[in-house]
Amino acid sequence: MTKLTIKMLARELNLSVSTVSKAMRDSHEISAETKQRVNLMAKRLSYVPNAYASSLSRRSSKTIGIVIPEVVDSFFALAINGVESVAQEKGYHVLIYLSHECLAKEISILKDFESGRVDGVLMSVSRETNQAEHINKLISKGIPVILFDRIIDKVESYHVSTNDYESAYEATEQMIRCGCKNPLFLSFSNQLSITGKRCEGFKAALARNNIPQADSSILELHNDHYADYKLLKDRLSAGEHIDGILSSVEKLAILIYQVCEELQLTIPGDVQVISYSNSKSAAYLNPPLSTITQPAFEIGKTAATTLLRWLHYRNPRLDTEDIVIPSSMVLRKSTKPPVRLSSSVIDEEL
Amino acid sequence: MTKLTIKMLARELNLSVSTVSKAMRDSHEISAETKQRVNLMAKRLSYVPNAYASSLSRRSSKTIGIVIPEVVDSFFALAINGVESVAQEKGYHVLIYLSHECLAKEISILKDFESGRVDGVLMSVSRETNQAEHINKLISKGIPVILFDRIIDKVESYHVSTNDYESAYEATEQMIRCGCKNPLFLSFSNQLSITGKRCEGFKAALARNNIPQADSSILELHNDHYADYKLLKDRLSAGEHIDGILSSVEKLAILIYQVCEELQLTIPGDVQVISYSNSKSAAYLNPPLSTITQPAFEIGKTAATTLLRWLHYRNPRLDTEDIVIPSSMVLRKSTKPPVRLSSSVIDEEL
Repeated sequence: MTKLTIKMLARELNLSVSTVSKAMRDSHEISAETKQRVNLMAKRLSYVPNAYASSLSRRSSKTIGIVIPEVVDSFFALAINGVESVAQEKGYHVLIYLSHECLAKEISILKDFESGRVDGVLMSVSRETNQAEHINKLISKGIPVILFDRIIDKVESYHVSTNDYESAYEATEQMIRCGCKNPLFLSFSNQLSITGKRCEGFKAALARNNIPQADSSILELHNDHYADYKLLKDRLSAGEHIDGILSSVEKLAILIYQVCEELQLTIPGDVQVISYSNSKSAAYLNPPLSTITQPAFEIGKTAATTLLRWLHYRNPRLDTEDIVIPSSMVLRKSTKPPVRLSSSVIDEEL
Repeated sequence: MTKLTIKMLARELNLSVSTVSKAMRDSHEISAETKQRVNLMAKRLSYVPNAYASSLSRRSSKTIGIVIPEVVDSFFALAINGVESVAQEKGYHVLIYLSHECLAKEISILKDFESGRVDGVLMSVSRETNQAEHINKLISKGIPVILFDRIIDKVESYHVSTNDYESAYEATEQMIRCGCKNPLFLSFSNQLSITGKRCEGFKAALARNNIPQADSSILELHNDHYADYKLLKDRLSAGEHIDGILSSVEKLAILIYQVCEELQLTIPGDVQVISYSNSKSAAYLNPPLSTITQPAFEIGKTAATTLLRWLHYRNPRLDTEDIVIPSSMVLRKSTKPPVRLSSSVIDEEL
């Protein structure tokens, strides 16, 4: 038996396909009378709209939006690849929107999503984002938003991130074990919960090792290359003998190398350095950079899988769930070998 | 003879341009009688609506689509920033689509644009793209596509790129001046016109310096890390004494460093290296990498400015124009200093 198509149904009713389609979607453009005629005939002929047709009527765009602050960062580039590895397989388009670390821009992007341009959103918030209204509003309109990496607690949804507190704690302990007595935590000044957690991990390691923690152990930069360069240079030449830096931001690692070169400080002789980084060039810097490597691809993949599963089953609401995928520490030559042998495994790459 | 415009048609009918436009689109806002008047007059005067004019009548989405192969590359990250610097100011949203170097995906993305999701497109083609039908089809539907960086000649539109031939020529000459006798051109195997132009520039420099150019002077890799690693390792250990490499791809520079480390070849002592690259880490690699630095931000900005200007004025058709913004060569320590001080040549060339 030939499957009854909407075209055949339309012919039977002597209406256009477009009219029948609109009637079945309960469009305001179609009169009540016509809608009744269409529905009766559809019932009589046992017309079952196919998946594509019904997705049309649900206005599914088969599109996922990714909202991230920037792409000049290996983490996000890899996370996008993780998202696409899942989306492609399931026939979804992926759109990438950049907030450029600007809350107003982020709000404007989410506003744009209300029109149904995307079925769901994967998002890593901007540095300015200190409120969640715009996110919760979109969720309340039936468009799920899953947060990854940079999350904000006030959103009831899935959060996919890494173990920021623990990894910062371990990295700081590592430098201390290797002789560091006056470490510095370097980040951009912002509201990000991941920065906060990393900073807490850093402080906890100081406390555990009886290193007095002062405000001066933390340096917040402003993502302005020249101002940041000067700020860091001032701190490293201030006579307080900073001898280790944990950088919370991939691109700050290069800034550290620049300033140390300028001040003729050797890495790791004068200053040990560990940075959060997914850059492939880390192993070929001079000296090779010790990194906390985040599972960027897996984070993107997990966030996408979670979103698509939700879109498939359409549970009445999003669960609140924290999914944590641990990072790994890769020790290279920007940190010293341990002063004393400890139980921790040193993961020398190459 | 002057081409009949919709404005002239409207004047003839004593109607507004908007009414005529709507009538020709069979809008429900216009009465059947008016539609008939418009169509009769259009027929009588042989009025042919052009594709772009009819796109005018479409609702503008205030959105630009960027289609690029990937984002794990500093060039595209910076080019996006260039696009956004213009788009943001003019109130346009920017959507980023990744083709993942796959022609089928690229075709599917452009197909999706036909629905009017974007007002115009900025595009850098995939490595597989060897035909332009999908691009020309979108243009014929009134959605302008401006190509940047990776262009394909069969598209009648604006092309914004850099001086690939000249920059490759200069870089190769630079290595030869510094003692290189057997240089290798490294790229991914593909159809890209920029790769072709760089390769031609490389060959021309060999010819000018009486270095015999064999097929073996060119090594095409496949974007598969382990296979590529092996291929390059085999070539560098084959006893033919490759003593200089011009890499056409940013990420291949790190592969070269890896293989040289493995083979205990020194850079630049055994092998000089210059790579196309916009990576900030280039200056901090061991040794610092000499680069051809493309004006990525400016290329993105110029492409966006050109598109928005076109969208504003809506000329009847896209001009075919090549806009070339030159790259700069930054010499660091992965290349040798010149062999002899034949200053005249060096000054002239640098």
